[in-house]
Amino acid sequence: MKIVLVHGAWHDGTLWQEVADPLRAAGHEVHTPTLAGNGPGDVDRMIGHAEAVQSAVDYLNQNELSDFVLLGHSYGGSIISKLAEAMPDRIRRLVYWNAFVLMDGESVESVSPPPYKDMMDGIVASGAYGPGAVKLPFPVWREAFMNDASLELAQKSYEMTTPHPLKTLTDRLELKTFYDLQIPRSYINCTEDIAMPPGDFAWVPRFPARLGLCRLVQMPGGHEVCFTNPGLLAEKIIEAARD
Amino acid sequence: MKIVLVHGAWHDGTLWQEVADPLRAAGHEVHTPTLAGNGPGDVDRMIGHAEAVQSAVDYLNQNELSDFVLLGHSYGGSIISKLAEAMPDRIRRLVYWNAFVLMDGESVESVSPPPYKDMMDGIVASGAYGPGAVKLPFPVWREAFMNDASLELAQKSYEMTTPHPLKTLTDRLELKTFYDLQIPRSYINCTEDIAMPPGDFAWVPRFPARLGLCRLVQMPGGHEVCFTNPGLLAEKIIEAARD
Amino acid sequence: MKIVLVHGAWHDGTLWQEVADPLRAAGHEVHTPTLAGNGPGDVDRMIGHAEAVQSAVDYLNQNELSDFVLLGHSYGGSIISKLAEAMPDRIRRLVYWNAFVLMDGESVESVSPPPYKDMMDGIVASGAYGPGAVKLPFPVWREAFMNDASLELAQKSYEMTTPHPLKTLTDRLELKTFYDLQIPRSYINCTEDIAMPPGDFAWVPRFPARLGLCRLVQMPGGHEVCFTNPGLLAEKIIEAARD
Repeated sequence: MKIVLVHGAWHDGTLWQEVADPLRAAGHEVHTPTLAGNGPGDVDRMIGHAEAVQSAVDYLNQNELSDFVLLGHSYGGSIISKLAEAMPDRIRRLVYWNAFVLMDGESVESVSPPPYKDMMDGIVASGAYGPGAVKLPFPVWREAFMNDASLELAQKSYEMTTPHPLKTLTDRLELKTFYDLQIPRSYINCTEDIAMPPGDFAWVPRFPARLGLCRLVQMPGGHEVCFTNPGLLAEKIIEAARD
Repeated sequence: MKIVLVHGAWHDGTLWQEVADPLRAAGHEVHTPTLAGNGPGDVDRMIGHAEAVQSAVDYLNQNELSDFVLLGHSYGGSIISKLAEAMPDRIRRLVYWNAFVLMDGESVESVSPPPYKDMMDGIVASGAYGPGAVKLPFPVWREAFMNDASLELAQKSYEMTTPHPLKTLTDRLELKTFYDLQIPRSYINCTEDIAMPPGDFAWVPRFPARLGLCRLVQMPGGHEVCFTNPGLLAEKIIEAARD
Repeated sequence: MKIVLVHGAWHDGTLWQEVADPLRAAGHEVHTPTLAGNGPGDVDRMIGHAEAVQSAVDYLNQNELSDFVLLGHSYGGSIISKLAEAMPDRIRRLVYWNAFVLMDGESVESVSPPPYKDMMDGIVASGAYGPGAVKLPFPVWREAFMNDASLELAQKSYEMTTPHPLKTLTDRLELKTFYDLQIPRSYINCTEDIAMPPGDFAWVPRFPARLGLCRLVQMPGGHEVCFTNPGLLAEKIIEAARD
């Protein structure tokens, strides 16, 4: 099976390694592109959502990929919905892992709790990470993203993540055909994921409910089980994607 | 302990076998009647809810059963509520396993998402399974009922199920005394059961909340753990029913 | 790490023993005060919430405790919020375990389902447990608090609990500064805890949502895992409290 893993905000393709390894060991072909605007080093953090999507399209074209399972994590969910519109016939199944499932006209920011907006706007305005770039304060990362981790792992993973282009989260998406597509879809939910907090903003039931007929798969853990439980995540990806 | 297991739509009594075996091995007396309108072969699929209930009453009378735990799965929940009204003194405890808990005047259809109604009406109208009979399209079975299964098991179980009499799902029930009964009750919920989809139509909290004081027992899995995890289901039935 | 465990209604400090033992074995200093109004014997059950809080303040002062993790279970949550206001600089982290997180002006009773109020008022009026005292009827304890237990353990634990001063549950709390405090906080939720029943009154998301940035930790079990799974509860307390 060919699997394309699309990372979330603050991540890049290399951070899938502990998930990709067991998937490859199980015989699957795994691709982990880094989206435009993400990754370490001298990256343009002023880009918007369309540029991020285009970078994924370019990757998929250059690698001449088709008949692949396309998984998006978190912000990556907003990317794969656009890829589904762009190349519906090449995607075998969409898998959203605690990911945003946006409607036409929405942005990641518009479906997130307002305090996140205020916090991120303030961080970008501070210029701490360069123009247009935002990184979560460590306490937020530790409590709301890595709640299932030791402090050491929370710190280590925080150091591995990189600033994210805020504009990709505030750009509103055009999604005119997505909800008419017939691509099979799955949703993986980690039952302690509070990156979207308990209540009306929670990932579940809000986002899988938008997908209609959709295979739900759950596992314990927070928003970053790619770090805290990558082996089980790999198993759940296979359950979500296997046919 | 005497346990009577009442199956759901598309099922029949024989499909409990992998659940009944460990229960019997643990020393329990297990009964698995097939409701009127269900099962393979030349069955009248035009019958309604009252006939299905009556067939269970007849079974319980012919076997002179009393002091039994009465479990209903899915559609079977609507049956056991009527049985509770018919013979409250013979039932030791009611156990609803991802089952409909109906109010007076409701039908299974009336508490299900409207797309199910449209889909089922269309299938009956097509005549594909004979007069009055409906079977789920395989993709719905695989994604929403067997989301925790391999494709092979989803296919095998699909072949084991049989067409269901739609009228039993659309008939509205008279339940005048049920909510005054003092029979102890339990609710078993499988945490990945999306046969009723995430959101307002979900099994939990909607249906256990109707039961007042009610022992909640949960386990991982989808709507058909009788096929995907029958041993654990048997354990949970004992937890739900043990006193 | 210093950990202060504040019990819930019907409990006293000695009932933490099976939880405190593994915590102490892991090297932690564990304190389990009994609140005023609780415990066996000739106790004044007419006291109110302020007296219960004061008894905890006295305990913490007499033991000269600071830099401690403060955990409250159930009713104990209403106590630790008041302690947080009284001594914010001495508390390292607040941990709510299926606990009430009250707003200014609320009582435990005011955020509980109305049938609980009627039931408890009736029990106090009956005088069965002496002036001002209430104990749950055994069927409620068994079904809604010990739903994950054997009947034997449900009975044994019921005998270990003691009548509770109702006034501590009906007194409305003044909480003027709590929601401005910056003390880190965690919420432990047992996924089968139906002491607050499924639906609008459920513990989660209602109470953790009030805490803002808050580390969520979950485990299987009902409201009394201190009896049904004390070892796992101890592990989860460490996860919730570790930094």
